[in-house]
Amino acid sequence: MAAETAEQPQVWRRLRAESGPDGASGLHRAAGQIRSRAPRFVALVARGTSDHAALYAKYLVEIRLGLPAGLVSPSTMTAYGARPDLRDVLVLAVSQSGGSPDLLRTVQVAGAQGALTVAVTNDAASPLASAAHAHVDVLAGPERAVAATKTYTAQMLTLHRLLDAVGGGDGASSDPLPDLGDAVLARDGEVAVLAQRYRFAQRMITTGRGYSYPTAREAALKLMETAYVSAQAFSGADLQHGPLALIEPQVPVLAIVSEGAGGEAMAPVLASLAERDADVLRIGSPGPGLGIELPGGVDDELSPLLEILPLQQLARHVALDRGADPDAPRGLHKITATL
Amino acid sequence: MAAETAEQPQVWRRLRAESGPDGASGLHRAAGQIRSRAPRFVALVARGTSDHAALYAKYLVEIRLGLPAGLVSPSTMTAYGARPDLRDVLVLAVSQSGGSPDLLRTVQVAGAQGALTVAVTNDAASPLASAAHAHVDVLAGPERAVAATKTYTAQMLTLHRLLDAVGGGDGASSDPLPDLGDAVLARDGEVAVLAQRYRFAQRMITTGRGYSYPTAREAALKLMETAYVSAQAFSGADLQHGPLALIEPQVPVLAIVSEGAGGEAMAPVLASLAERDADVLRIGSPGPGLGIELPGGVDDELSPLLEILPLQQLARHVALDRGADPDAPRGLHKITATL
Repeated sequence: MAAETAEQPQVWRRLRAESGPDGASGLHRAAGQIRSRAPRFVALVARGTSDHAALYAKYLVEIRLGLPAGLVSPSTMTAYGARPDLRDVLVLAVSQSGGSPDLLRTVQVAGAQGALTVAVTNDAASPLASAAHAHVDVLAGPERAVAATKTYTAQMLTLHRLLDAVGGGDGASSDPLPDLGDAVLARDGEVAVLAQRYRFAQRMITTGRGYSYPTAREAALKLMETAYVSAQAFSGADLQHGPLALIEPQVPVLAIVSEGAGGEAMAPVLASLAERDADVLRIGSPGPGLGIELPGGVDDELSPLLEILPLQQLARHVALDRGADPDAPRGLHKITATL
Repeated sequence: MAAETAEQPQVWRRLRAESGPDGASGLHRAAGQIRSRAPRFVALVARGTSDHAALYAKYLVEIRLGLPAGLVSPSTMTAYGARPDLRDVLVLAVSQSGGSPDLLRTVQVAGAQGALTVAVTNDAASPLASAAHAHVDVLAGPERAVAATKTYTAQMLTLHRLLDAVGGGDGASSDPLPDLGDAVLARDGEVAVLAQRYRFAQRMITTGRGYSYPTAREAALKLMETAYVSAQAFSGADLQHGPLALIEPQVPVLAIVSEGAGGEAMAPVLASLAERDADVLRIGSPGPGLGIELPGGVDDELSPLLEILPLQQLARHVALDRGADPDAPRGLHKITATL
């Protein structure tokens, strides 16, 4: 997990190099297919960590492409046999392995129901890659730790570049990312010290809004699956609708506060947390109290790639401090087959 | 909360009586408007408990109406100013109060972007009711407890009848519900005894699939906001992608297992839980171990209305046992204004 976490900026460089017309990712071709079909709606389908990359893509689709988007519940087409009318719909399936039976079945049914289907996976030879009309390879290389790290950010960068290309962009906005990623990851020692603070926390809450909400979700999953912390993620707005009652000084909060609109929308959430004397670690833009400050000047829509890095490190350090093995969490396998 | 929980079957009877062509709910008229617009895609927007009713409706739309559906993140249109192309889109806004500024703004923008907007609220005089093209009143009467109970099931029944009417149904499938609801609620004493078991649980996990996944989400929220338990909800499939590592005998699991396809899809999840010696309370169909059995023969799509009843009671009893006041949870207000 440590090696794969550290490798991320290198994966991003590879991805960027291979996203052009002759690139190995297949991204350019897929973007062309999507453009020529001009979909009216985008349905995303994924599980686990990939679902958080899909959620990130949902924001991009709604904000950047101006199309309504939704996360598909695979069970509607598998367990319930729904056969929705999917003409004019782009179905984007996101999966590390490309091997989950429910995603495969969903893509097959979606194709038969008229959708354009695009798979984003880390395995060009996977069943999902074959079943979809187009495949984009996230080119992260083999990922061996059960807790996904480099495939998560590779999926996000791939989806960002893909949707940017669909919208006619040149992908230049992500130019500075790999170097910034290296700089953030170099602060692992600082994160290791912070991790001590959470040595005995049984519960944690993560929160963010907009593009940073997927970060909150993914950070919670990393903490759950590696350190066995009951980490709960809430969008800042949802936190104020009920779960705020959970907040007390004994339940640490990780708040992802970017420089952009999502971070600004966190202001009332941070005020509510302060009123309740919550123990808050702020990740992102500078602010009062405990924090992990990230480099400024990054597009709001790209900041999730940097935000998750110290949180992956944090989960790993908390796991190690507790004597857990972040490379092989109890009871989990690398590929989860859900029907 | 006790009185409002007990009142639910009576609310359902009222709703059913007022859903016809001249009924006070406005449901018949809204269904006609939706039918005549023949939307291609349904976007749902809601917060908190209402978001769980919206999630329930998402399954109905996908399975019953055969249309792709998505839950809108209000922040895309509020914080980020997205202006998506919403021609052929039905936007269904679900809210108890009809007063949340972000939902109001989303409905206004959606209408301007070409969507047909329908608000489902408990207040016909609310800003949301006025802003939408059509309003359906859930007719639950004043709800005073901060923890929503009767408005939740009233929203679900309203959405079920609305979407049933859009699909040309006559709503007869919900005929037996009110009497079954009374029978389920009469077992409050049994639930009070079960609640003792969770007196000292700090964390809980709730899980379900398909139509029962919203039940798992809502049960977790009730436990959080009334009893301050860190309750985490997972779809059965998502539980197997990572959070399964959290399962240990000290973390009780509430599994919602209906008689239908969603319940059948829980079989591998229940097997994984048994392998880990999880402490499972099963709600729904009969099975081995601890359980709250619900009446059989109910449509899969209607079972969520019955499933949530003992879980509302359970949350209340756990809260009372812990000395909390379920009518006035700490730090919460009845109407949450998020921007």
